[in-house]
Amino acid sequence: MKDQQIEINLATTRKEKPDFNNLQFGRTFTDHMFIMDYTEGKGWHDPRIVPYQPITLDPAATIFHYGQTVFEGLKAYLTKDEKVFLFRPTKNFERLNRSSARLCMPELDEELALNALKELIRVDRDWIPNLEGTSLYIRPFIISTEVHLGVSAALTYQFIIILSPVGAYYKEGINPVKIAVETEFVRAVQGGTGNAKTAGNYAGALKAQEVSSKSGYSQVLWLDGKEKKYVEEVGSMNVFFKINGEIITPELNGSILEGVTRDSIIQLLQHWGLPIVERKISMEEVYQAGLDGKLEEAFGTGTAAVISPIGEFFWKNEKLIINNGETGPLAKKLYDALTGIQNGTLPDSLGWVEEV
Amino acid sequence: MKDQQIEINLATTRKEKPDFNNLQFGRTFTDHMFIMDYTEGKGWHDPRIVPYQPITLDPAATIFHYGQTVFEGLKAYLTKDEKVFLFRPTKNFERLNRSSARLCMPELDEELALNALKELIRVDRDWIPNLEGTSLYIRPFIISTEVHLGVSAALTYQFIIILSPVGAYYKEGINPVKIAVETEFVRAVQGGTGNAKTAGNYAGALKAQEVSSKSGYSQVLWLDGKEKKYVEEVGSMNVFFKINGEIITPELNGSILEGVTRDSIIQLLQHWGLPIVERKISMEEVYQAGLDGKLEEAFGTGTAAVISPIGEFFWKNEKLIINNGETGPLAKKLYDALTGIQNGTLPDSLGWVEEV
Ligand SMILES: Cc1ncc(COP(=O)(O)O)c(C=O)c1O
Ligand SMILES: Cc1ncc(COP(=O)(O)O)c(C=O)c1O
Repeated sequence: MKDQQIEINLATTRKEKPDFNNLQFGRTFTDHMFIMDYTEGKGWHDPRIVPYQPITLDPAATIFHYGQTVFEGLKAYLTKDEKVFLFRPTKNFERLNRSSARLCMPELDEELALNALKELIRVDRDWIPNLEGTSLYIRPFIISTEVHLGVSAALTYQFIIILSPVGAYYKEGINPVKIAVETEFVRAVQGGTGNAKTAGNYAGALKAQEVSSKSGYSQVLWLDGKEKKYVEEVGSMNVFFKINGEIITPELNGSILEGVTRDSIIQLLQHWGLPIVERKISMEEVYQAGLDGKLEEAFGTGTAAVISPIGEFFWKNEKLIINNGETGPLAKKLYDALTGIQNGTLPDSLGWVEEV
Repeated sequence: MKDQQIEINLATTRKEKPDFNNLQFGRTFTDHMFIMDYTEGKGWHDPRIVPYQPITLDPAATIFHYGQTVFEGLKAYLTKDEKVFLFRPTKNFERLNRSSARLCMPELDEELALNALKELIRVDRDWIPNLEGTSLYIRPFIISTEVHLGVSAALTYQFIIILSPVGAYYKEGINPVKIAVETEFVRAVQGGTGNAKTAGNYAGALKAQEVSSKSGYSQVLWLDGKEKKYVEEVGSMNVFFKINGEIITPELNGSILEGVTRDSIIQLLQHWGLPIVERKISMEEVYQAGLDGKLEEAFGTGTAAVISPIGEFFWKNEKLIINNGETGPLAKKLYDALTGIQNGTLPDSLGWVEEV
């Protein structure tokens, strides 16, 4: 598979570019997409770059009924000197394969997938926005395409990559977000699919988001599915707390998504010699630390938002204000360090960027 | 919406019918399908019957990424005197609406949906197989179609109904199945989506099925997600035990699907004056009853399989053989009663069938 030639079929007309000053997240897509098919027995075949176009599937394709699908999210950045950087892209393809394994889907050759991505970015290079905070969001995903109403792993799939120029994920930008701690709904439980990046996790999460946004909380903090006691993660971010000088993030337990940003933050903190611990942490402990004046900062981490300071938690009808609702120095420092490496304005001392 | 006229656009050529003696489950579809669109602000619109055809969606349609989708499964039966019966179809559309509510999707007018289904069945009436054990399987489903990479409820959807002539669901027919009790993977947990008929539940279940089928068990019995102690259900069936003369089924707890067959069985048993209890039941209790010689029967219930006697449970490396691995008298009696009502060979004393 590694040596398969990617066929390139360029679009004859190009779409008009959106205003890069006013990009909405995930609404505009570039001129091309990458597609590759999988057939049981034959493996992955026919890698190709084609004009961005609709997917046509039988209404009985298993994706519509049994949700066999996995996805990834990463970004390409345009540096001041016009280089295109990817941030730890191999981590995303590794995670895609782990997600696929959980969902009984065929794994990809990570090298081929990365090459395909680079080729696609080269083709649509002029879609990478060049303004502060903007980037090219990359969405690789695999869907099951077999025509079969029956609950079993499909025998055919498509791997697709689409690209979208994006601005900041949250309207608030690097400003703090308010988050409601979810005490009724559950996102994931050990033994389930929480650590896979798969559609069902997100579909199931909508209700809690809908309920909490009615009270003005744009995101929810998920607790563990067994006891609703331990902190897991936010909608599409992992979460960190700084308590009494120490930085704590929930340990990976099978129900939390293993964020690439999470891992990068941990490494950065270690690199800086700051105390970072991965362990179970209960909401009670966070709240108590807040009452005691020891909760110095809290923030979410993820590809879309990079670092999102948390200014307030709403839990059991109580508001917990963190750092006066302002962005803390650690969140700011991490944001600057990460985005600096991603944009090429800071040296890549940990070897994380890869040029396209 | 109720008064909306269904537009009918008939296929100009018809497909060849499959051999009704050799139907595979969910592989062949009829000549037509029903479609209706939803647009936020406008509601459901453009109900239409069209030739069976592919669905065309933007690759960024949210269904592929965030899995907002719900479905149903019911059947139409051809009676000896050429009537077409539906079995409690309103229950399915009610459940579809409950599933939609959990997934933040728009609800349907149940009457309109049922009328649409009847109209579609009339159009494809000659696809209903007329042999013992066969029927027309009906798959209503709703998918989110909005083009948006961002985790929020979509603003556009499609409601679709497709039809498939089917034979028996299990190759084994009414013969007993062997079932492995799942102790590692979890299907659902309270606060999650277990009681909604949505794709993610099935995608997440594949892995356990894959592992257990390697040891010769075609299905798994799920335990609760918190303690892995209490019996929940089988892959696509609810489950009943007859212990010491009493019939027990796990109570609805938010993580079990509320089966229409389950409800019908409970009502039938009550109608017959047999002791039926809905309560928590641990696997330990089932196993102990087996050891004590008090586990008289166990069976699964669902639209696809109707009644599926369970001949063996495999749990923690032990085999528990039930009723010598044979179909028990209660399972047989329930199977005959239900299929008799469905096929019109027995009187419909509980008012369950609805003629098309
Ligand atoms: C559920 C969930 N948790 C955490 C993350 C953060 O992961 P990453 O840092 O790899 O973007 C994401 C986003 O991708 C996510 O969807
Ligand atoms: C998870 C699950 N449980 C139970 C059932 C049985 O429900 P019903 O009797 O309505 O077919 C089904 C099948 O539809 C199912 O998918």
